[in-house]
Amino acid sequence: MLTKGRMEALSDGVLAFAMTLLVVDLALRPPGSPVHQFVAAWPAYLAYVVSFLTIGSGWIAHNALTDGLEQVDRIFLRLNLVFLMFVSFLPFPTRLVGASLHQGIGAERVAAVVYGLSLLAIRLLYFALAAYSRARHLRQPGTEDADMRESGRKFRFVVAGYMATILLGLFVPTIAIAVYLAIALYLFIPFRSVIAELSGHN
Amino acid sequence: MLTKGRMEALSDGVLAFAMTLLVVDLALRPPGSPVHQFVAAWPAYLAYVVSFLTIGSGWIAHNALTDGLEQVDRIFLRLNLVFLMFVSFLPFPTRLVGASLHQGIGAERVAAVVYGLSLLAIRLLYFALAAYSRARHLRQPGTEDADMRESGRKFRFVVAGYMATILLGLFVPTIAIAVYLAIALYLFIPFRSVIAELSGHN
Amino acid sequence: MLTKGRMEALSDGVLAFAMTLLVVDLALRPPGSPVHQFVAAWPAYLAYVVSFLTIGSGWIAHNALTDGLEQVDRIFLRLNLVFLMFVSFLPFPTRLVGASLHQGIGAERVAAVVYGLSLLAIRLLYFALAAYSRARHLRQPGTEDADMRESGRKFRFVVAGYMATILLGLFVPTIAIAVYLAIALYLFIPFRSVIAELSGHN
Amino acid sequence: MLTKGRMEALSDGVLAFAMTLLVVDLALRPPGSPVHQFVAAWPAYLAYVVSFLTIGSGWIAHNALTDGLEQVDRIFLRLNLVFLMFVSFLPFPTRLVGASLHQGIGAERVAAVVYGLSLLAIRLLYFALAAYSRARHLRQPGTEDADMRESGRKFRFVVAGYMATILLGLFVPTIAIAVYLAIALYLFIPFRSVIAELSGHN
Repeated sequence: MLTKGRMEALSDGVLAFAMTLLVVDLALRPPGSPVHQFVAAWPAYLAYVVSFLTIGSGWIAHNALTDGLEQVDRIFLRLNLVFLMFVSFLPFPTRLVGASLHQGIGAERVAAVVYGLSLLAIRLLYFALAAYSRARHLRQPGTEDADMRESGRKFRFVVAGYMATILLGLFVPTIAIAVYLAIALYLFIPFRSVIAELSGHN
Repeated sequence: MLTKGRMEALSDGVLAFAMTLLVVDLALRPPGSPVHQFVAAWPAYLAYVVSFLTIGSGWIAHNALTDGLEQVDRIFLRLNLVFLMFVSFLPFPTRLVGASLHQGIGAERVAAVVYGLSLLAIRLLYFALAAYSRARHLRQPGTEDADMRESGRKFRFVVAGYMATILLGLFVPTIAIAVYLAIALYLFIPFRSVIAELSGHN
Repeated sequence: MLTKGRMEALSDGVLAFAMTLLVVDLALRPPGSPVHQFVAAWPAYLAYVVSFLTIGSGWIAHNALTDGLEQVDRIFLRLNLVFLMFVSFLPFPTRLVGASLHQGIGAERVAAVVYGLSLLAIRLLYFALAAYSRARHLRQPGTEDADMRESGRKFRFVVAGYMATILLGLFVPTIAIAVYLAIALYLFIPFRSVIAELSGHN
Repeated sequence: MLTKGRMEALSDGVLAFAMTLLVVDLALRPPGSPVHQFVAAWPAYLAYVVSFLTIGSGWIAHNALTDGLEQVDRIFLRLNLVFLMFVSFLPFPTRLVGASLHQGIGAERVAAVVYGLSLLAIRLLYFALAAYSRARHLRQPGTEDADMRESGRKFRFVVAGYMATILLGLFVPTIAIAVYLAIALYLFIPFRSVIAELSGHN
C-alpha cells in the first residue's frame, strides 16, 4: 500500500528546499565598486527569479496533479523521484549562469544552454508524470482543476519556447536568460484568473 | 480544488530552510587573533539574529493568516510564492552585511541598504497577502487572532521604522543593523501577552 | 507514547534535504574550456545521480518499512536517527568523488572507497532497522508490501556488489563509480512491476 | 487559535535541516596525502557526530515535550523559535571546530569553548520550554513519557558535564571534543530501555 501522503511530503520538501537553496549561490563576483557589482551581476539575479518561479510553477502543477490521484503505483513513485532529481539539480545551472558572467562568451554560452536544457527537462518530466497517471488510470478523467488544465494548454508553447531559446542562447546568452524570465512568467501567471478578477468576476 | 494544507507545508518548509540556511554564511573573515575575530564580526552575528527573528515573526504572522483562511484561490497561491521568494532571498543580504565588514564604508552602505529593503519587502508582501485575503473574502471578517491583530497594529510603525533606518544606513551602516534588531524584537515580542503574564492574568 | 507521524516527518525532511544538498557540491573544477570542463567532470555527475537514486531507493524502502509499523519503540527511534545520520552524511563522500578528480590516483582511490563504504553503511543500517522491527514484533508478519519484499530479495546481492566494488575502487576508482550506478539502478528500478506493465498486466 | 501542528512541522523542518546541514561544512583541510587528511581531521568528524546526536536527542526530547501539550500559547511559540535559533546555529561552531584544526592552539581553544557554550545553550533553552509549559499548565501533570522523564533525570548531570568540559576546552581542546561525544551518547542512549531489552523484558 503506497502512501500518497508521504510522496507529497517528500515532494514538498525537495521543492521547498530547491527553491531556498538557490540563494546560496548568489554571489558578487565581478570586481569593481559595490554598486557596480550589483548592476553588473543582473543575469545572476534574473536566473534566481527564473529558477524560483519555475520551481514555484512546478510545485503548483505537481500539487494539482497529485491532488486528483486516487492511487499511486510503484512506477509513478519512481518517476516522481526522477522529476524531483531534475528539480533539485536546477540550482547548479542557475549558479553556472552567475559564475559564467565575465568569464568570456564561451562560458556564458555553455551556461545558457545547460540552463535551458534543465528547465526543459523539468517540464518534460512533469509531462511524463501527467501522461503516466492518465495512461494507468491513476486519476478519474475529467477531474483536472484549473491549474492542471492551464498547465496542459501552455505545455506545447512552453516546450517550443524553451527549444527556441536554447538555440538563441548559443548566440546571445544574456538575452536568452531574459527570454527564460518571460517563459517563467507565462507559466506562473494564471492569466484567466487575473482577467476574471480584474473584470469583477469570481 | 486548491489545498490549503500543501500550501502551508511548502510555506513551513521554505521558512524553516531559510531560517536554517542563515548559518551557512556566518564566517570569520576579518584577520587577527581568534578572539578578536569574534568581537570584530559583531554586525554579522547581529544580522543573523535579526534575520532569524524576522523570518520567525513572518512565520507566526503567516501561520495566523492562513489558519483562518476558509479557501485559497489561484492568485493567493502565487502571491504566497512571491512572499516566499522574498523570504528565501533574505540569507543573501544577511551574508552581504557580514561580507561587507572591513571592506570600506561603501560596501557597508550598499549592504545595509539592500538588507533594509529586503526586510521591508517581506513585510509589504505579507501585508499584500493579508489585504488580498480580506478583499476576496477568503476569510470571515472578525476571525483575526491575537497575533494577527498585533501584526496589523504594528504594521505602520514597522514600515516607517524600516524606511527611516534605510536612510540611516546610508550614513552609519553598522548602527542601522542595530536598529534593525530593535525593529525585529518589536515585531517578535508579544508585549501585551508578556505584560498579562507578568501581572498574573492568563 | 511515541509518535510514528513525527518520526516519518523528520525522516522525510532529512531524506529530502540530503537529496537536494547533493547539488551544492557539484562544481566545475578541472581547468580548460567550458565544454571540456563538463566532459572531464563526468564522475562527479555520475556520483550525483548514484547518490540521488540511492537516497531515493532508501526513501522508498523506509516508507515501505514504517508504513507497516504498528508502533515505534524508543530504540527504533534512535536506530532510525543513526540511519538518518548515515544518509545525511552521503553528500560528503559524493563531494569527495568530485573533488578527487585530477588530484591523482591516490585521492581518487580514497574517495571511491569512502564512497562505497558510505553506500554500504546506509544499506546495512536499513537492514538493521527492518530486522529490529521484526524481532520486536513492531509489525505484523506477512504485511510486507511489494517494495519491502523486493528490498529484501535484493539485499544480499547489493551488499555483495558493494563489497566487490569497494575492492575494485582500490584499483580503478572511476570504473567503480560506474559500477555504483549499476547497483543504484538495480536497487531503484522495480523490474517485476515494469515487466508486468510492459506485458499489459496491472 | 494557535496550531500545535504547524509549530511541530516548523520544528521538525528546522531540526531535520540543521542535522543535514552539518555535512556541508565537513572538509579536508589539512595538507598531506589523502589518507593522512582523513586521519588528521578526526576532531571534525567527531564534532559532526556529536552535533548530529545532540540535535537528534533534542528532537526526541522536543517530540516528547510537545506531544503532551494540550495547548500552545503565544509566548511558548516564541520561546520555541528561540530554541530553534540556537539549534540551527549549531552548524557554525561545529564548522569552527573543523576549521580551527592546525591553526594553532588559540583557534582550537576558541572553537572548543564556543562549541560547548552552544551545546549548553540548546539544553538550557529546552529546559526553559519544559519549565514554561509546566508553569503555565500547558500540559497535564503526570503525563510525561519515558523519554521526557529520562531527559529530566539527565538534565543536571548534562549541564554540569558541559560546564566542566567548557573549562577543560580552555586547556586541551581536542580532548574536550571527545568528552562532548561521551555526553552526547549519554543523552542519546536510553540505557533503561536497552537494559530491559537485553534482559528480555519489554
